[in-house]
Amino acid sequence: MREIDMSKYQIHTDLIVDTIKKAPFIDGIKEQTYTKNDIYVSNIEIEKDLDIISKKKGFYTTIYFDDVTDTTNCNNVKEIFLKELKKILEKSSIKDTDSCLIIGLGNDKVTPDSLGPKTIEKIIVTKHIYDLTNTLEQGYRITSKLSPGVMGNNGIETSDIIEAVINKTKPDFIIAIDALSSDSISRVSKTIQITTTGLSPGSGIGNKRKALTKETLKIPVIAIGIPMVVDAVTIVFDTINFMTQHFSYNLKNKNNIKNKLIPSSKINYLNDNPKPLSKEETTYLLGAFGNLSDLEKKSLLYDVLTPIGYNFIVTLKEVDFEIEKLSEILSYGINNSLHKIEKQN
Amino acid sequence: MREIDMSKYQIHTDLIVDTIKKAPFIDGIKEQTYTKNDIYVSNIEIEKDLDIISKKKGFYTTIYFDDVTDTTNCNNVKEIFLKELKKILEKSSIKDTDSCLIIGLGNDKVTPDSLGPKTIEKIIVTKHIYDLTNTLEQGYRITSKLSPGVMGNNGIETSDIIEAVINKTKPDFIIAIDALSSDSISRVSKTIQITTTGLSPGSGIGNKRKALTKETLKIPVIAIGIPMVVDAVTIVFDTINFMTQHFSYNLKNKNNIKNKLIPSSKINYLNDNPKPLSKEETTYLLGAFGNLSDLEKKSLLYDVLTPIGYNFIVTLKEVDFEIEKLSEILSYGINNSLHKIEKQN
Amino acid sequence: MREIDMSKYQIHTDLIVDTIKKAPFIDGIKEQTYTKNDIYVSNIEIEKDLDIISKKKGFYTTIYFDDVTDTTNCNNVKEIFLKELKKILEKSSIKDTDSCLIIGLGNDKVTPDSLGPKTIEKIIVTKHIYDLTNTLEQGYRITSKLSPGVMGNNGIETSDIIEAVINKTKPDFIIAIDALSSDSISRVSKTIQITTTGLSPGSGIGNKRKALTKETLKIPVIAIGIPMVVDAVTIVFDTINFMTQHFSYNLKNKNNIKNKLIPSSKINYLNDNPKPLSKEETTYLLGAFGNLSDLEKKSLLYDVLTPIGYNFIVTLKEVDFEIEKLSEILSYGINNSLHKIEKQN
Amino acid sequence: MREIDMSKYQIHTDLIVDTIKKAPFIDGIKEQTYTKNDIYVSNIEIEKDLDIISKKKGFYTTIYFDDVTDTTNCNNVKEIFLKELKKILEKSSIKDTDSCLIIGLGNDKVTPDSLGPKTIEKIIVTKHIYDLTNTLEQGYRITSKLSPGVMGNNGIETSDIIEAVINKTKPDFIIAIDALSSDSISRVSKTIQITTTGLSPGSGIGNKRKALTKETLKIPVIAIGIPMVVDAVTIVFDTINFMTQHFSYNLKNKNNIKNKLIPSSKINYLNDNPKPLSKEETTYLLGAFGNLSDLEKKSLLYDVLTPIGYNFIVTLKEVDFEIEKLSEILSYGINNSLHKIEKQN
Repeated sequence: MREIDMSKYQIHTDLIVDTIKKAPFIDGIKEQTYTKNDIYVSNIEIEKDLDIISKKKGFYTTIYFDDVTDTTNCNNVKEIFLKELKKILEKSSIKDTDSCLIIGLGNDKVTPDSLGPKTIEKIIVTKHIYDLTNTLEQGYRITSKLSPGVMGNNGIETSDIIEAVINKTKPDFIIAIDALSSDSISRVSKTIQITTTGLSPGSGIGNKRKALTKETLKIPVIAIGIPMVVDAVTIVFDTINFMTQHFSYNLKNKNNIKNKLIPSSKINYLNDNPKPLSKEETTYLLGAFGNLSDLEKKSLLYDVLTPIGYNFIVTLKEVDFEIEKLSEILSYGINNSLHKIEKQN
Repeated sequence: MREIDMSKYQIHTDLIVDTIKKAPFIDGIKEQTYTKNDIYVSNIEIEKDLDIISKKKGFYTTIYFDDVTDTTNCNNVKEIFLKELKKILEKSSIKDTDSCLIIGLGNDKVTPDSLGPKTIEKIIVTKHIYDLTNTLEQGYRITSKLSPGVMGNNGIETSDIIEAVINKTKPDFIIAIDALSSDSISRVSKTIQITTTGLSPGSGIGNKRKALTKETLKIPVIAIGIPMVVDAVTIVFDTINFMTQHFSYNLKNKNNIKNKLIPSSKINYLNDNPKPLSKEETTYLLGAFGNLSDLEKKSLLYDVLTPIGYNFIVTLKEVDFEIEKLSEILSYGINNSLHKIEKQN
Repeated sequence: MREIDMSKYQIHTDLIVDTIKKAPFIDGIKEQTYTKNDIYVSNIEIEKDLDIISKKKGFYTTIYFDDVTDTTNCNNVKEIFLKELKKILEKSSIKDTDSCLIIGLGNDKVTPDSLGPKTIEKIIVTKHIYDLTNTLEQGYRITSKLSPGVMGNNGIETSDIIEAVINKTKPDFIIAIDALSSDSISRVSKTIQITTTGLSPGSGIGNKRKALTKETLKIPVIAIGIPMVVDAVTIVFDTINFMTQHFSYNLKNKNNIKNKLIPSSKINYLNDNPKPLSKEETTYLLGAFGNLSDLEKKSLLYDVLTPIGYNFIVTLKEVDFEIEKLSEILSYGINNSLHKIEKQN
Repeated sequence: MREIDMSKYQIHTDLIVDTIKKAPFIDGIKEQTYTKNDIYVSNIEIEKDLDIISKKKGFYTTIYFDDVTDTTNCNNVKEIFLKELKKILEKSSIKDTDSCLIIGLGNDKVTPDSLGPKTIEKIIVTKHIYDLTNTLEQGYRITSKLSPGVMGNNGIETSDIIEAVINKTKPDFIIAIDALSSDSISRVSKTIQITTTGLSPGSGIGNKRKALTKETLKIPVIAIGIPMVVDAVTIVFDTINFMTQHFSYNLKNKNNIKNKLIPSSKINYLNDNPKPLSKEETTYLLGAFGNLSDLEKKSLLYDVLTPIGYNFIVTLKEVDFEIEKLSEILSYGINNSLHKIEKQN
């Protein structure tokens, strides 16, 4: 069987946990996790550049949560994001006196890509006051911000604008916010990743071609991303995996597969942690397709949908509300980690 | 095998053509079609109420087109929509002097559900001028408009607001615009349906519980809908159908299935009009699942995704632009069919 | 001297205090005032209809404050508005079980006229839940809401929509929110009036021709208004009054008027509570114009500006921010006075 | 009498015609004018730097028009603006192959200051295509665009962002769009100024401290401005001037001043071109104040209103609609003058 070009998928999955779970036994990866208020947090440290999984040395924090349009949950996520961002700033050796440029990537006219610009709207800036008075109120750091737009909109490579502004204004470090693609529909608008390794080429929803990293910009770059879109291949792939788990659950619990192919049950079979189907069971239920590897399945789905123009990039129907709440969470965490002030909404 | 409750699907597919193609041999259905500038138009007349397919006597026009963010295509769709809407007005025996209330259903804060309110923004109204002066400029009809919002937003059943306003203002007929659910991802934002039979309960994206029809409102109701969302079940179901067509194409063209399961081909296999796989081929490739009926497949997918909360309703990433252009098309057609005036954008 | 038709002014000044201060000695007016956190509150009761000042029997509360784009001040105004609205509900004998329809008047596409619709966006509604379940969570009242738009936009007389919805949904009382015209530029976006007497014809910014009162709607109508615009006549009239006070201050403090006509002083002369100029002083400084009565001055300015199209209606440059904050204040007060719940922002 | 510091006014009046009419006899100023479709155009050339009026050598075109919310008038203004912008490009020796960076100054969250950003939204860009393919379709020029925001928003001096982006992207010339302050309420949203001399410090609505000129940026800067706000001093000053003209008209036409101080006439007295009042008439009608010079009057009004916080900056109530139409006019003219293409809306 011919070699599969998975680069087309790598451009659509930038969450570290997606990568790690595909390569669990690689050396040089340390992970700690905890759960609080139904929010699950993974703190990963990669101790050296791992080319094999295309991941750089650095810290990667991922926060998983449920629907943030619920007010209580939204407030819980705010506090955990704030705590985790503070930890990342510390691990990056950012000093309280270091000045920060906060950058909101993405297109404010495309709702699922507007996470960066919408967050930027609520960011507190102080640089202009410092430049004028040479002093700042107690607790404040020098901050400025930028929504560079997207290249297709303004005709200028986004990273050119960013580099130009950095050269002119000389911040000590960068926080960059971007909407990402997800490799699972269930993570869309329900995961925040923070990393010290910046943004790689091909990350994000838009066509951002150049990296924003310490290597390219010469200053630390803390990247914050939330997956906001998913492609049809991913939705189908996820569903087929769920289908096998659903079959496994039914096999174990119902004796007779065939009669139960279409159960009326509303039971959440995932809670049962169903064991994988055997090769024979898979063949019976899903044929040759069922026995392909994950990479092969995805590649096949890609080959089925792409030539006929059906590999649509989609977002949740409620994306307007999600973006509103998520940008509040991010601006809350950024403002309150950068400035030691009475907490601001 | 137990009976399948497909009512859950009917609530998500309101395009007439979806229904017709599932019941091609029923009596009392007349269809004429044509294609112009790559836009495909189907004019269906249902001559008597057909309970078997839950469709009422009346006219159903469906317009299929490609990406309307292309300016030339958008203009072509505008002209065809105008022509077809005029035909529907004529078939409904609407007179030039009949007054019209145009209603934009949906939630203007949820982009994919904002088609109605956004169209309403651009509708020309004259009723207040007529009420004041008892006359209108040559060519104008008495028109008024309403965006009643959604029940979840204002706490009032939408149809109560509509009925109350109709009783008070006494229009001769209604044009109602709504965003719909689709039963195919490929139709999202690429199909307009016009019908003389009003809106059925459960149509549309929001929770609209009561029908808006000639029966309930006592005046003719012309409904205009565009599918703007799709659920995950539909995306997976469509993809599995494409997969079998993809296999069929490869079987015919490549001799050896197994080696070609993951082809690199970019050929649009749909153009080849691939014949259905045999039962044996299907079993080999997709197992028992492959041999389920369409209804069984959808019902199974529904049972797999729903209990674990994964049957997400999604929309296209570019929905902001699509809604902008689609609402322009609809308001252009409505304004220029209702008033005999120099064409307005 | 001919009679002056001041009806043209009455249409532009609906704040009770404007009326009262012009008629201080009329019987049947009781006023109590207090100041807290630099916010000044006037509670007026008019004990019987006073046709002479075109004011109806009822309660009129006016709250004066400074710039609400200041967060601390905004929060102070929120609490006082909540307290005062509760008092008005009590005085109107509204019971905890009475259902309320909240109406946001005005045009959401015209920023200074969008106070009503913007407030409505943040109002909590429960009627749809009650209608479905026949019960509500502890502390909640039955509420619904409506943004009827403006007649010029939807072709329907606004009060027709409101009456129709009231007849259909049968609320026990109404809260109506509207942006008003001011008779002083200094009050624009800095005054809230609450009254039990509803909205009179000609109130507000738009062309609202019919009254929304207990007489017309048959249920209590609590009206909440904030002046958001002012006309050029008012700005000039105010300035000329300030000019005389400025002269008076300088006369008293500087001995020599002429040399001081153009002082460089930045002193707030109003704090000095300057006494009125004598007739001779006024004639010397402002000629015959200076000795006209207030009504005559306004009428003259009206006659100067109107025929040449210069009596512009204007709003503050920062109106977008003001509306944002003011609608937050109103929705906070309305939500927390109608429902006995944990305070919501 | 002490010297008057008029710098405070110069910061609020940047229309060339305001300056010229105050200094009509200065050498080195050439003006040509014409009227078409009720639109009045003034083409001024200043042949050498004129420090006395703070105006630089260059071309200044001013277009006066009426309400652009009227569709026909809006279209007429579009064509004249396009023609005049083309003339300015020619006079500036801009070649068809010169690349252009279009800059939209101002704050998109403050409606009257959003003219620049709103215009930018509709500007066609091609630089990213040229950078990728090294070629452009026939008729297109290399264009890119930028909305740098305002310093108070992003903490960075606006001109620093602009300079940085210019240095990085090397355009051949700049077109900068900005909302201006007016020295007459009647010009707000009804005047376009185009100039080859860039933007001076203190121009515009926001706090722009650094100049954007050929001197500072090293490339030609064509500035396009529309007055969108006016301060209270200006409104009062204008009104007092109108009052004297109104008196003069009545003196001439009515014999008896006193009886006619408050005329009911709706006659547009400006059409009568009333002659100035005599010193005695002025003293009788407006006292000492009436006989102050224009500068003294403005300075006095400034001193009356500023210390008590009443010199509000205001905009028209309908500013949302005006900005929408004006940004359409500007983008139409810019797109169609920069690219030799089929006319785009």
